[in-house]
Amino acid sequence: MKRSGYVASVGEQQLGQTVTLQGWVARRRDFGKLIFLEVRDRTGVLQVEVEPDSAAFAEAEKVRAEFVVEIEGELRLRPESQRKEGLGQFEVVAKRLQILNEAKTPPFELEQGERVSEEIRMKYRYLDLRRPEMFEKLRLRSKVIAALTSFLDAEGFLQVETPMLTKSTPEGARDFLVPSRLSKGEFYALPQSPQLFKQLLMIAGVDRYYQFARCFRDEDLRADRQPDFTQLDMEMSFVDQEDILALNERLLRHVFQTVLGEALPSPLPRMTYADAMNDYGSDKPDVRFDMKFADVTDVFGGAEFKAFADAVANGGVVKVVAAPELTRKQIDELERVAKQNGARGLAWAKREGNSLTGGISKFVGAQASELIARTGLAEGGTLLFSAGAWRTAVEALGAVRLALRDLFDLAANGPKFAMLWVTDFPQLDRDPETGTWTYMHHPFTAPHDEDLPLFGTDRQGEIRAKAYDLVLNGFEIGGGSVRIHSPEVQATMFTAIGFSEEQARAKFGFFMDALGYGTPPHGGIAWGFDRLVMVMSGATSIREVIAFPKNNRGVDLMVEAPGSVDEGQLAEVGLALRE
Amino acid sequence: MKRSGYVASVGEQQLGQTVTLQGWVARRRDFGKLIFLEVRDRTGVLQVEVEPDSAAFAEAEKVRAEFVVEIEGELRLRPESQRKEGLGQFEVVAKRLQILNEAKTPPFELEQGERVSEEIRMKYRYLDLRRPEMFEKLRLRSKVIAALTSFLDAEGFLQVETPMLTKSTPEGARDFLVPSRLSKGEFYALPQSPQLFKQLLMIAGVDRYYQFARCFRDEDLRADRQPDFTQLDMEMSFVDQEDILALNERLLRHVFQTVLGEALPSPLPRMTYADAMNDYGSDKPDVRFDMKFADVTDVFGGAEFKAFADAVANGGVVKVVAAPELTRKQIDELERVAKQNGARGLAWAKREGNSLTGGISKFVGAQASELIARTGLAEGGTLLFSAGAWRTAVEALGAVRLALRDLFDLAANGPKFAMLWVTDFPQLDRDPETGTWTYMHHPFTAPHDEDLPLFGTDRQGEIRAKAYDLVLNGFEIGGGSVRIHSPEVQATMFTAIGFSEEQARAKFGFFMDALGYGTPPHGGIAWGFDRLVMVMSGATSIREVIAFPKNNRGVDLMVEAPGSVDEGQLAEVGLALRE
Repeated sequence: MKRSGYVASVGEQQLGQTVTLQGWVARRRDFGKLIFLEVRDRTGVLQVEVEPDSAAFAEAEKVRAEFVVEIEGELRLRPESQRKEGLGQFEVVAKRLQILNEAKTPPFELEQGERVSEEIRMKYRYLDLRRPEMFEKLRLRSKVIAALTSFLDAEGFLQVETPMLTKSTPEGARDFLVPSRLSKGEFYALPQSPQLFKQLLMIAGVDRYYQFARCFRDEDLRADRQPDFTQLDMEMSFVDQEDILALNERLLRHVFQTVLGEALPSPLPRMTYADAMNDYGSDKPDVRFDMKFADVTDVFGGAEFKAFADAVANGGVVKVVAAPELTRKQIDELERVAKQNGARGLAWAKREGNSLTGGISKFVGAQASELIARTGLAEGGTLLFSAGAWRTAVEALGAVRLALRDLFDLAANGPKFAMLWVTDFPQLDRDPETGTWTYMHHPFTAPHDEDLPLFGTDRQGEIRAKAYDLVLNGFEIGGGSVRIHSPEVQATMFTAIGFSEEQARAKFGFFMDALGYGTPPHGGIAWGFDRLVMVMSGATSIREVIAFPKNNRGVDLMVEAPGSVDEGQLAEVGLALRE
Repeated sequence: MKRSGYVASVGEQQLGQTVTLQGWVARRRDFGKLIFLEVRDRTGVLQVEVEPDSAAFAEAEKVRAEFVVEIEGELRLRPESQRKEGLGQFEVVAKRLQILNEAKTPPFELEQGERVSEEIRMKYRYLDLRRPEMFEKLRLRSKVIAALTSFLDAEGFLQVETPMLTKSTPEGARDFLVPSRLSKGEFYALPQSPQLFKQLLMIAGVDRYYQFARCFRDEDLRADRQPDFTQLDMEMSFVDQEDILALNERLLRHVFQTVLGEALPSPLPRMTYADAMNDYGSDKPDVRFDMKFADVTDVFGGAEFKAFADAVANGGVVKVVAAPELTRKQIDELERVAKQNGARGLAWAKREGNSLTGGISKFVGAQASELIARTGLAEGGTLLFSAGAWRTAVEALGAVRLALRDLFDLAANGPKFAMLWVTDFPQLDRDPETGTWTYMHHPFTAPHDEDLPLFGTDRQGEIRAKAYDLVLNGFEIGGGSVRIHSPEVQATMFTAIGFSEEQARAKFGFFMDALGYGTPPHGGIAWGFDRLVMVMSGATSIREVIAFPKNNRGVDLMVEAPGSVDEGQLAEVGLALRE
C-alpha cells in the first residue's frame, strides 16, 4: 500500500474519507476495549483509535512504542471535549493496521528528550533524531542550504568542488593527515578550508564561486567545535570590499526572510575592530544588549590608585562598565572570569547616591561624579574596572560583560538576531612574548592601500586589513577579506611575517606561481555554516545541528570511530604504530 | 571602476555607448599604429581596438597575453568585412586602458588546448581552466547541481551532511585512513559512501534524504577513477522499487531538459541483468547501437567443432555477433580484446553469399544458413563467436562489441544519450575459484520477496536482488536498491555470505542494532556524479569535469600532494614510517 500522504497532509477536506498513514507509534494507550495509538512521521503526530470490533484490533494489541505501522481508516474530528489545535482536531478510526516492522524497547524515552544524557543520545542518534525538535533542526539546515543555493545560482555563482585530499592550507591549525598507499611515506592533508583553491578559481577566471565546503582542523575540542565542519565558502573577482559585503547582506536577508520570515536590517550595522574591542572587549560583540565600556584612562593618569596609574604609565588603558547591583559572591565570580581572561583582578565600586562605596571606592571616590556621568551608572549599580595593556584589559572586561549577560539574561530583551560586520582588522598581529609578527587572518589578506607605506616601519601594527567578520548574537558566523592580487604586495606581506623567500616557496610555491599569471582583484568570505544554523535554530551547540556529530574527544559514539585497524592496513601505507 | 557587465553582456542596445570591461588579454596584435586586443572573461571574447592617439595606447603597448586589464571604450560594429557571429559583430574602441595585473608568459598557449600534455595542463590547472571549453564543463556541472537541488528540494528531500571522519563502510574497497591524535593508535576511515548513514537517516524518520557526497576509495587508479569522487546520494522511506525508479526518471528528465534541452524518453527503457548480459555481454550495455548477440548454444550441442561442443557439454554457451566486414588485422586485434577479457580465443567466419568462409567456416559451414538467419549477418560481414562458461563468454564478446563500436564509430549514428535501467541483479555472487558466496552490491540490498525461499538452497545463485543500475551510453552512472529492513532477512543475508554473528557485529554491529529499533521500508540510489557530468558534457575523462583532479598515481600535480610530513607530525599521531 501507499500512504495517502504524510500525517500532516490530513485536513478538513478529508473528513469522512479513508486515509492511509505510515509511520512510527509514538505512544500506545490501551483501555482494554479501545486502543489509542499516536502515529508519528516527520510532519507530525496523529491519533488513531482502534475499536475492539475492528479488523485492526488484534494487530494493535501487539504494537509497542516505535513500531513501524501502516494504518488505513476514516478521518474524523475528535470529540469536541478532546479537540486540540492543528492535527489535534482529528483522529483516524482504524479499519486496518499492518505492522511494517517491530521495534525493541528504545534505550530512552523519546519524550524525555533533552533530559537524557547527550552520550546516550549520540550513541542512538537515529532515535534522538526522531524527536520532532531534532528533525526540525535538520529541516531548517536543509532549507538554509536551499535558500543559499537558489540565491547564489541566480547571481551567477558557480558551485565548484575543491579537493579533499590535498596539501596543508594556510590556516595554521593542525592538519588531519591521510597516508598515501601509492606514494608510501607520503601524506595528503584534509583541507582546513578551500582558501587557496578558491583563489585559484579566481585566477582561472571562474569569477564567482561558492561551495558548501567540508573542512577539517585537528584542534583540541574543548570549545563547541567539531573536527570536521561545514563552511559556506565563496569568492568573487573584480570586486572590492563593498561589493562583497553588499552581496552577502542581500544573501543574508534572503535567507532569514525565506527560512524564518525574519527581516534583517538593511544595511547591516558595521563596527571597526578597534571600536568593537574598545566598546565591547570582543571582535565578535554581542550587541543584543548595550552595556558598552567607558574609557577612563584619562581620568586615572596620575591617580592615587597605583594599579591604574601603573597601567596608564605603561601605555595601558583603564576601562569601566556599568553593571547592575551585584552581590559580593557575584563580583567574586566575575573576578574569576576576568582572571581567566588575563586580568590580574576586577576592581569594583558601587553607587550610593552620588558617591561610590565598597571595592576601590576609597581610591576612586574623588572621580565618582565623572565616572557616574561617563558610564550612566544607575543607583545601586556596580562599576567594574579593567586596567592594563590594552588588549588584555578590554578582552577581560569583554568576558565579564558576557558573564553579566548570562547572569541577568540581558540578551532576552534585545532583538532575536543582532547581526553586524566587524571591519578593519589589523593586518598583522604581534606575539607579545617574542615580539615577532604574524598574520591576523591568513597571509593572503590584502591591506588597506593607504596603509601600505607602513610595512617595515615601527607602525606596521597599525596596518588595517581589508578583512571583515560577520557577527551574529556574539558568534563569529563568517569571516573574509579582499585578497592580495599583486605578487609584490604578497612578497611584502611574507617579509613582514618573517617568511624567507624559501619558506614562502616551500609552503605556497605553487600559489605564488599562480599569482604571477594574471590574477584579478578578488575577495570573498567563508560562513561558519554549522554555527549560523545553530543560532538560527535557537540551538545552544553545533552538535544539535549536525546529523551525526562527534563528542569533545572527536569520537563518534554511534559508529565507534576512530577505531583500531589491522597491521596489514598499516603496512600497506608504510606505517607502524610508535612504541 | 566597475565593469559595466560581463563581456557577453554587450549588445546592439549599447552601440555608440561607453562600456567598461574587465578581463584577460587573450591575444594582442600590434600593427604599430593600431593595437588589437582580444579581451576574455568567462562569458566570451571581445575585440578591442586601441588607436595611436588614444590615451590607452601607451598602456596597450605594455600589455601581453593573460594580463588582466580594464578597458573603457565605445562599443561599435566591426567593419562589415570583418564582422562575425555573436560577439564577433562588435568591437570596443578603447578610451582608457588600465593594467590591473601583469602576467608572466604562460607555460603553454591556451589556444593549443588539448594538444598540450595533460601533465602540464594539470600542473597549471588554473590556466587550463581559462580555456572556454574547460570553463563550460565547470559551468555545466554547477548547472546540473542547481537543477538537481531545486527539484529534490521541491520534492521534500532534505539535504543532510553525513560524517567524513568515520568507520569502514560496506563497499569493500580499501579505506583511506586518518590517524587520530586524541585517540593515539586509532584511525578514522574516510567514507566510501554514506550508505549506512543514509539508511540510519531513514531509521531516524527523515523520510527523504539527498546529498552531494564526497566519497573516497583507495583503489589502484588504472581506470578513469579518482581517489575522491562525488555521488549524488539519495534515500527514501515507505517506497518500493517502482517509486524510486519513477522519481529518478522524473529527476533525470528535469535535469537533461533544464540543462541541455534534451528530452529523455518516458519511461526509460529497462532491461534485466540477465538480458543485458545475454544480449550485450555487459551489465552496463551501450545501446546507442544495436549489434545484439545471438545465442547459438543449441546449434552447437553436438557440433563437430570441438571447442564449441566442449563448452556446451560443460554447461556453457555459444554466443555470436554479426560484425561488419573485417580485415585479418582487425580480427587479430579483436581477438586480443577477447583474450584480455577471459576468452581463450575469438572464432570467426565471413559471409560470402549464403556460405561462410575463412576462420572456423569449415567446422560451422553446415550451419551457415541458420547462423545467417539468426544474426542477420550482411554480405561480406563477419561472425564473431564466443564460447565457454556463460559469464566469461558473454563478457568477452561484450568487450569485442565495444571494440567494434570504437573501430567503426558505431555510436555516432545512435541517439546522443541512450539511458536505461538494468534491473534484477543477482543477490549473491559466487567466487569461481573458492566457490564461496558474497554480495553483489552490498550486504544491505533486499532480495525479491518471492526468491527468499532460495536462500540456503543450491539455487541461491538465482536469487534476484531489488537492485538497479542506471546506464548511460555504456557507463554505469547510478546504482541502488531497495534495502533490507527486516532484521531476520538481514541475518539470513549475513549467513548466506558466510558472516558469522560475531563477524557481522564486529563490522556492522551499530547498524544491526539500529535495524531493530523500528526501520521503515526504504531504498535509494547513488549517482556517479562525475561520470554523469562527463557524459553530459561530452568529455572523455572524469578529470575533465573535476576542477582540480589527480593523475593516475593519485597525485595532484599542481599543489604537489601527497607530500612528506615532518617527524613531529607523525609522532603526534603515534605513528612512524616503516623501515
